[in-house]
Amino acid sequence: MKFEAIAVENIPLIQDGDDLPSIICENISLQDRDIVIIASTVVAKAEGETFRLEDVPAGEKALEIAARIGKDARFIQAVLARSREILVERPFMLVTTLSGHTCVNAGVDESNIEHGFLLYPPKDPDRSAARLGKKLEELTGKELSVIVTDTNGRAFKIGQTGVAIGIYKIKPIKRWIGEKDLFGKVLEITEEAVADELAGAANLLMGEGAGGIPAVAIRGLDYYCEDDTCIKETYRPEEQDFIKKGLRCLQRKS
Amino acid sequence: MKFEAIAVENIPLIQDGDDLPSIICENISLQDRDIVIIASTVVAKAEGETFRLEDVPAGEKALEIAARIGKDARFIQAVLARSREILVERPFMLVTTLSGHTCVNAGVDESNIEHGFLLYPPKDPDRSAARLGKKLEELTGKELSVIVTDTNGRAFKIGQTGVAIGIYKIKPIKRWIGEKDLFGKVLEITEEAVADELAGAANLLMGEGAGGIPAVAIRGLDYYCEDDTCIKETYRPEEQDFIKKGLRCLQRKS
Repeated sequence: MKFEAIAVENIPLIQDGDDLPSIICENISLQDRDIVIIASTVVAKAEGETFRLEDVPAGEKALEIAARIGKDARFIQAVLARSREILVERPFMLVTTLSGHTCVNAGVDESNIEHGFLLYPPKDPDRSAARLGKKLEELTGKELSVIVTDTNGRAFKIGQTGVAIGIYKIKPIKRWIGEKDLFGKVLEITEEAVADELAGAANLLMGEGAGGIPAVAIRGLDYYCEDDTCIKETYRPEEQDFIKKGLRCLQRKS
Repeated sequence: MKFEAIAVENIPLIQDGDDLPSIICENISLQDRDIVIIASTVVAKAEGETFRLEDVPAGEKALEIAARIGKDARFIQAVLARSREILVERPFMLVTTLSGHTCVNAGVDESNIEHGFLLYPPKDPDRSAARLGKKLEELTGKELSVIVTDTNGRAFKIGQTGVAIGIYKIKPIKRWIGEKDLFGKVLEITEEAVADELAGAANLLMGEGAGGIPAVAIRGLDYYCEDDTCIKETYRPEEQDFIKKGLRCLQRKS
């Protein structure tokens, strides 16, 4: 039992309107049940999410936060525009985005962009994954899953890993229900976050910065699934999210 | 550019004193620069970390907590024995272990064990990884890295992923320092948590429950490193750990 992770190389700099699926297919022969993992930066660029700070007038809340934390109010405005809650303001802005994902700066990206431009994340990464997946399936005639990924930090540890922010034709959580362990004892439900593990695996090839590998195919696993799937399934329900409750507790004290 | 993840199959049930490196080598031909990823459950079993609840007399603190949360006081005693701080008591005990890792139940495992027995995690997973790695290198004559892994939950999302808890001859964090992005702009330091991404990748083959694949070789990446390395490098310094501060804030209020 094994799987391969294959970098899709020679993808050019992506711009607004580019046909990512066609570009991907020019650089790799996809096979049935491949999982195509695509960095959110190129998805966002192709979707025209590039913007300039000059075009983001800072509102009152952004100006207040900027005064407190000493960051550019226009950048903060961009983050606020994509956030439904600020959990931490400094030393980094940890937020829950409009789509329910918790990450730094709402995924607004200042790197890998021509000087003066920034990048919003895709507005609806599941919808992006579905659009890309359907086009890839059309072009190749293969059954394919797609994961749109970002890199995020994590609790308790330094460093970032690849994470899934949008999915198509793959369940983000694999549930081991009623399996027996090696001694025949029935286990409780175990939930394996396979979409995030795949995102991390792909990130080992994508790298950061000038890595230049925005797409990876993972081949040999059997996660293809025709059902509707949605990354929101992975977000912890608010009433069970003790870590968010803790961060709000800290905010009330400060 | 690509890598493979190869399951080491046919590993028998592991018991106290078993020679894991020899058993692994009987079932796979390792190559130079392979990263050998081994589940902490089999490492702990071979190290004799199996125990019975009857042999864990519950102390006062365990009895107090048991009264509050309705769990077996002897199980709680086992968790306390391996913990330096309890961050959350219910609905699950989230702790920081003696070795600095933050996880549920201090990694004490109730599954995959003959009825009535439980399993502590390895006392010092870095030392376990080094011992296993040196023996594997002796047996094969190859340059090898080792990662000892567990599965943990994470903040803000449901589900578990593979994580690194001990390492040998691999840096847990890959630092992209002073790399230029595609436009020649020098990036700040980016830290990619490659040991955890590798653990997650391996877990896609290891699975949970009756998966029965406790070791995986990852082949094709170039992370071999002769320097001393230590998983503690990945733990966020306490004064920067806002999430722990938040959880302590919640505890003071309850």
